[in-house]
Amino acid sequence: MRMLILSFNKTIKNFRDIIDSNLKEVYLQGPENMVQTANFVMSAKGKRIRPILTMLSCKSLGGNIQNSINVAIAIELLHNFTLVHDDIMDEDNLRHGQPTVHNKWDISTAVLTGDSLLWLSLDVLKRNTKNREEVILHFIDAIKLVCEGQGYDKMFEEEKHVSIAQYESMIGMKTGYMIGLCSHLGSICAGASVEVQSKMKKYGLEIGKAYQIQDDYMEIYSSEDIMKKSLKSDIELNKKTYMICLASDIDPEGLNKILSLKVSSSDKIVLLRDFFDDLEIKNKTIEQINKSFASAEKILSEIDLKNDHLSQLNKYLINRGY
Amino acid sequence: MRMLILSFNKTIKNFRDIIDSNLKEVYLQGPENMVQTANFVMSAKGKRIRPILTMLSCKSLGGNIQNSINVAIAIELLHNFTLVHDDIMDEDNLRHGQPTVHNKWDISTAVLTGDSLLWLSLDVLKRNTKNREEVILHFIDAIKLVCEGQGYDKMFEEEKHVSIAQYESMIGMKTGYMIGLCSHLGSICAGASVEVQSKMKKYGLEIGKAYQIQDDYMEIYSSEDIMKKSLKSDIELNKKTYMICLASDIDPEGLNKILSLKVSSSDKIVLLRDFFDDLEIKNKTIEQINKSFASAEKILSEIDLKNDHLSQLNKYLINRGY
Repeated sequence: MRMLILSFNKTIKNFRDIIDSNLKEVYLQGPENMVQTANFVMSAKGKRIRPILTMLSCKSLGGNIQNSINVAIAIELLHNFTLVHDDIMDEDNLRHGQPTVHNKWDISTAVLTGDSLLWLSLDVLKRNTKNREEVILHFIDAIKLVCEGQGYDKMFEEEKHVSIAQYESMIGMKTGYMIGLCSHLGSICAGASVEVQSKMKKYGLEIGKAYQIQDDYMEIYSSEDIMKKSLKSDIELNKKTYMICLASDIDPEGLNKILSLKVSSSDKIVLLRDFFDDLEIKNKTIEQINKSFASAEKILSEIDLKNDHLSQLNKYLINRGY
Repeated sequence: MRMLILSFNKTIKNFRDIIDSNLKEVYLQGPENMVQTANFVMSAKGKRIRPILTMLSCKSLGGNIQNSINVAIAIELLHNFTLVHDDIMDEDNLRHGQPTVHNKWDISTAVLTGDSLLWLSLDVLKRNTKNREEVILHFIDAIKLVCEGQGYDKMFEEEKHVSIAQYESMIGMKTGYMIGLCSHLGSICAGASVEVQSKMKKYGLEIGKAYQIQDDYMEIYSSEDIMKKSLKSDIELNKKTYMICLASDIDPEGLNKILSLKVSSSDKIVLLRDFFDDLEIKNKTIEQINKSFASAEKILSEIDLKNDHLSQLNKYLINRGY
């Protein structure tokens, strides 16, 4: 077992190095204002979960990881595009422990930087020759869904009650679809059958769901130091997280009472923790995260994999601190 | 001759109707906040020059215009994406005689609307089956160039002197490349040879150059009523137009004197008119516009066209009022 974990850790480190060195080469020539800001975003110490999952999916299905690198980089760039534009919309000032683009520069620069990260992602896909057209078509669907997911996310801020079903549909478009895209495209890069591709996509969707609910959980039970991003904005913007939606289903009046209090966001977080404890929401949230990871594991068990790296990744994600 | 013009006018009207009715159908289902704003942008009474040129290029080369409609719509959507994001960056409040998105709603909504117009353009290309992959790859290059062109445009605002060569390179990435894309992709839709495709692209680049310099010209010699957009921002943002770059090459000191005066933008426009007259810049600009149209016409004469619609389009553009 120890050997397996060592091998997994080494693989992840190796993949992360490949990803970081490729990202450094992606955009070297162009207008200075764009090259500088795009590289600023790409050089942030992100977890690189999405490109790692893409490459790991390819490798676990017996594919050559060289065939998956451009796709992995493209997905990381698409993810960075959403972060830069979402940070403008959410007025977030901190990301990966560094200032956001609109904070360090200005909104115009951030709009342009996001746009440039989006076309860079498409540009990188142009270089991917294996199943290129198929990959690009799926990628276009992903752009649609992350944009629409963000649209619903913003709409929900204005709404008093958002059900768990609406919430799950929304995260299924944002984080869920994007992480599903990683395992899906990774399997296409490995030349997997359509049946396996479909299972790999479902596996990624479950991981994505668990991952987003973990994020929501940590926004309440973690600290900014650990998360390396500002936590207040979710509360200030009236964001619909898993726990808020659950509370809204169980005790809407109690929840609205807390949310409408004229106290600081930090105080509100403390009050929400107590409230969530009373309604057993903390436990229910952990249960849902575990349930999604278990579903993901079950799907994996139905696929003929060459190694157990994806299961190791699940364990790694279950135990992540941020 | 009269018959020819009538036939051209009828064709243009027919194409514009096809374009408008297709744009109405593009985005009907999705988050209300995105569907509403995207349709607001698409329903504006734009000139539709880009999609018309795309379809006309296909038709003039003997292609079936049905094969070019999706490509034409995709280009118009890409153009609208650039307008919405550029208007945020330039703080423009009026476009096509109606408020800009960030003005009518807010910046967040405008960022998201621009993003959605970009993926809609890619989504429409997915539906185009003839030479789909080839078309998408060229389209990705266009996204790169319009973004980078905008990057240089913003950079130039900060610079005192921008040469005519730098200016021409910048508009060759924005308006020029985009209009070149129309005739280029239109020829691909018609199944033209690579040689003809290349000529059609060059033709479009010349038209695009003429079109942008015309725009610059009209910003000084036209009125907001006619242009249906605010004219002040170019002066306020220190935008580098063809005439500014020409003046900066001939008499940089005289130009800077006027630009640094603490007077209103409208007064500055009046002073610039006199200054441009003195330096013969008005005439030189008209000469350059005519030169580009003549080059475009010459390229057309080398292509075996089925009708003279593209020449008619040139004449239509030469005489455009806005």
